[in-house]
Amino acid sequence: MTPRIRRATRDDVAAIVGLLADDPLGAAREDTGDLTAYLSAFDRIDADPAHALVVLDDGVVVGTLQLTLLPGLSRQGATRAQVEAVRVTSTHRGQKLGELLVQWAVDEARRRGADVVQLTTDASRTDAHRFYERLGFVASHVGMKLSLV
Amino acid sequence: MTPRIRRATRDDVAAIVGLLADDPLGAAREDTGDLTAYLSAFDRIDADPAHALVVLDDGVVVGTLQLTLLPGLSRQGATRAQVEAVRVTSTHRGQKLGELLVQWAVDEARRRGADVVQLTTDASRTDAHRFYERLGFVASHVGMKLSLV
Repeated sequence: MTPRIRRATRDDVAAIVGLLADDPLGAAREDTGDLTAYLSAFDRIDADPAHALVVLDDGVVVGTLQLTLLPGLSRQGATRAQVEAVRVTSTHRGQKLGELLVQWAVDEARRRGADVVQLTTDASRTDAHRFYERLGFVASHVGMKLSLV
Repeated sequence: MTPRIRRATRDDVAAIVGLLADDPLGAAREDTGDLTAYLSAFDRIDADPAHALVVLDDGVVVGTLQLTLLPGLSRQGATRAQVEAVRVTSTHRGQKLGELLVQWAVDEARRRGADVVQLTTDASRTDAHRFYERLGFVASHVGMKLSLV
């Protein structure tokens, strides 16, 4: 059976946080012991139709992705579709589940009238760069961050 | 007199598009002859409190920036503040107006509870990379784009 992509619910938050923490970079950044901040963030995401937070459901949650539609003036008023927080559980890698998730995001972005799909990946994630390049993404930009905390 | 940063209005759209087109990359991407798509995008931005589209007003519009607050689950439910479409008119460069705009965005992001400010710049804009690094940004990510048009 192929896992299906569906909208995340509040009941999925613990599983999504588990996926975010199951990662070399995420392990140091997440706190799976207290879901309060995650649930509050989920409510903000879920209330705004600009966002689509989805899970890949294979009986249990095995993947997640957040898509956000961003209107802008540049490129003749182009709408950007931004992909964040793509994760597939480590026990299910090599099964093309990442492709399934990202292809869903690209199709959904097109369906909602976006002109470009964009994302950033940590410079250390060289496997991820090759993965996105195989799906047609071009590494044309530098992603810069300023932490406020 | 120091130029002031204020929320953009519909009447500013022509000037903002002029700024977007006054740029080596933007010149090929923008169409200053027909504002229809830009005005429609402006209305979408203006209607959503997640966005702040501002101009730098020096009697005339000499700069622009779009800030968007993005809730997310990762990093313990961190809110990201994304900066897009930063431009300063070519006749006013070297006057620290870019710093003024970006510092406003950082302050506004902090005021609205964001944990990180993020942006991408075209890999060819090496001056921009140095500019953002001077303001404390770290070039930690690769920005990838997939065009749908």
